[in-house]
Amino acid sequence: MVEERVTGFAKVLVDKAAEVEEGDNVYLSAYSTEVLPLFDEVRKMIIKRGAYPHEHLIYDSQLGRAGMDYDWLTNASEEQLKNVSEAKRKELEEMDVYMSIGGRENERELNGVAPEKISLRKKAAKELSEMRSNLRWVLTRYPTDSLAQNADMPTKEFEEFVFSSVVDVDWEELERRNQEIKEIFDQADEVRIVSEGTDITMSLKDREGVSADGNHNIPDGEVFYAPVRDSLEGHIEFTYPGVKQGNEVRGVRLEFENGKVIDFSAETNEEYLREQLETDEGSKYIGELGIGTNRQIDRFVNEIGFDEKIGGTIHMALGKAFEDCMPEGEEPNDSAIHWDIVKDLRRPQGDGGKIILDGEVVQKDGEWVF
Amino acid sequence: MVEERVTGFAKVLVDKAAEVEEGDNVYLSAYSTEVLPLFDEVRKMIIKRGAYPHEHLIYDSQLGRAGMDYDWLTNASEEQLKNVSEAKRKELEEMDVYMSIGGRENERELNGVAPEKISLRKKAAKELSEMRSNLRWVLTRYPTDSLAQNADMPTKEFEEFVFSSVVDVDWEELERRNQEIKEIFDQADEVRIVSEGTDITMSLKDREGVSADGNHNIPDGEVFYAPVRDSLEGHIEFTYPGVKQGNEVRGVRLEFENGKVIDFSAETNEEYLREQLETDEGSKYIGELGIGTNRQIDRFVNEIGFDEKIGGTIHMALGKAFEDCMPEGEEPNDSAIHWDIVKDLRRPQGDGGKIILDGEVVQKDGEWVF
Repeated sequence: MVEERVTGFAKVLVDKAAEVEEGDNVYLSAYSTEVLPLFDEVRKMIIKRGAYPHEHLIYDSQLGRAGMDYDWLTNASEEQLKNVSEAKRKELEEMDVYMSIGGRENERELNGVAPEKISLRKKAAKELSEMRSNLRWVLTRYPTDSLAQNADMPTKEFEEFVFSSVVDVDWEELERRNQEIKEIFDQADEVRIVSEGTDITMSLKDREGVSADGNHNIPDGEVFYAPVRDSLEGHIEFTYPGVKQGNEVRGVRLEFENGKVIDFSAETNEEYLREQLETDEGSKYIGELGIGTNRQIDRFVNEIGFDEKIGGTIHMALGKAFEDCMPEGEEPNDSAIHWDIVKDLRRPQGDGGKIILDGEVVQKDGEWVF
Repeated sequence: MVEERVTGFAKVLVDKAAEVEEGDNVYLSAYSTEVLPLFDEVRKMIIKRGAYPHEHLIYDSQLGRAGMDYDWLTNASEEQLKNVSEAKRKELEEMDVYMSIGGRENERELNGVAPEKISLRKKAAKELSEMRSNLRWVLTRYPTDSLAQNADMPTKEFEEFVFSSVVDVDWEELERRNQEIKEIFDQADEVRIVSEGTDITMSLKDREGVSADGNHNIPDGEVFYAPVRDSLEGHIEFTYPGVKQGNEVRGVRLEFENGKVIDFSAETNEEYLREQLETDEGSKYIGELGIGTNRQIDRFVNEIGFDEKIGGTIHMALGKAFEDCMPEGEEPNDSAIHWDIVKDLRRPQGDGGKIILDGEVVQKDGEWVF
């Protein structure tokens, strides 16, 4: 039974998302041995497709951002952290696909590592990260003990939840629904979201949405936009905590004028929220509005890769906007951060609420009504 | 306590054997998670030396010979097995050091895989193997459950044995002793070994020995020669089984004339011995005479990397001779095999015996008397 689910999961990654073909070189990465059941199955499938796996398990210090770990970050000198590996560059040049199966043994492994070191390494490795994002890339997460604990769930239940969010989804149906949602949002000028403590508007004028339906992030299911930067007006209270690098901020409330955060508060860890907002000029603006569309993902599990996909939620990201969302000739909002926080519009999970496009209600309490 | 031993082990690998320096790129390889305690320590030490680890844990299918595993060999097509990875070639080009920490979860993992597939892959990957051997290379083995079981020992005792064979050795003293042994063998023309069922002579004329004292294989401790190919006369009975790719042959007896095996027998699995001898023309000749010199390695553990180092033993290899052992202008014996088998000259572990150089006894029952 579990084996069948693992095979199903692997097929979504290898055949649907990465579309692995004969002769492909596949960079296959994972950061713990807990993910080995899926790693092994994916690897075998890659081999069976006539392709070549290039395996990187647990450690991959020279990769850059994704290869960060405690021993490397705490023991390496500034010079070492700044170094961009020529071997890694050449290896990536030969790759067709980058696939990473997330899930560490301890999701707090980098807590307490000096943030300057992390930033330094990220910056140095930017070139390698860009090389990866120019490949057919696929990211996923395996239901480890650590992620289950993080979700306040028993591992077996979390396992079932994760497998269901990948294997039980009718991906063709999800893609079709995403397209419908994208169409009505693409045509709209103004989006308004109204809920408990929330009344916010923004413009999507000349914006096209991106349908995320199982090509890069698995599980998938969202349609996302870069709203017109200076258009946000009003205030929003998020349902779920904002979590960034192990820091949790509960009860985030933001108020906007001309697109910029002019006031904010939080129930816990407000200071961290302040620091993030003050990262740079761009971090005070919204880079993304996303609409979650995966109905198998029905609860908050404290892992943004899942939470932002919950059908019946929206999320907004402070900071950097994605290039793909911008009309030609317009620059996306730039920032060192991109921090997604989720608002649940369902009832009773959230406070209920409405999404209103140009004055017309299209979603009520998490259910589409268009 | 164990931690100290692990650190000591890592130091022998990183500082003594590989001489890792600032800026070095180190290819760091291991084939199971059981070896992680040592792998982690070695890796941290490499980072602390200002060098760059390039980690390859468990799987490394594109490496070639060392990267063989069950799923890869059984699922890959002939075309895939023949393919030499450009990414791997380029990665190896950038390396300064190759280090491998052996010890799989199951040492019989490749039993039953079609030998043709293994040969095909070895042949295809020859180029990559040669690239590795042109780096500063270091091979070692970690005391896994599987190797302990293989040695018919409890894991804790095997652990103690392995750590002792690396950490408790006075490497300077071993090097000094190796040089003395090398000197007297270098000067000798004829080596004769006499023991129960054994009276064999061979010529070392114009041959120089290689002192293996902790630069490549850890644990180390031997002096080895390529005897003059056609010079072997007489017969030898080996004490310990010959083991090759999971096949064990007990009670191997060989008889030589003009260097060539003209008769042979075995107590078990004689057929496998016959097959190996018939591999090619070179497999009927002796490529190596080695003299074990590590006194911490005091017992047979069914793993040639240890057994051939036992102080008080000699070993001979059927097949390929090493380039390093040959005088200029002479070609080493060539063969697809190099199969070391050990004779114990100690008492009571073996039958006792003598090593005689040009008529003078230099070792008696495993103890040097020169």
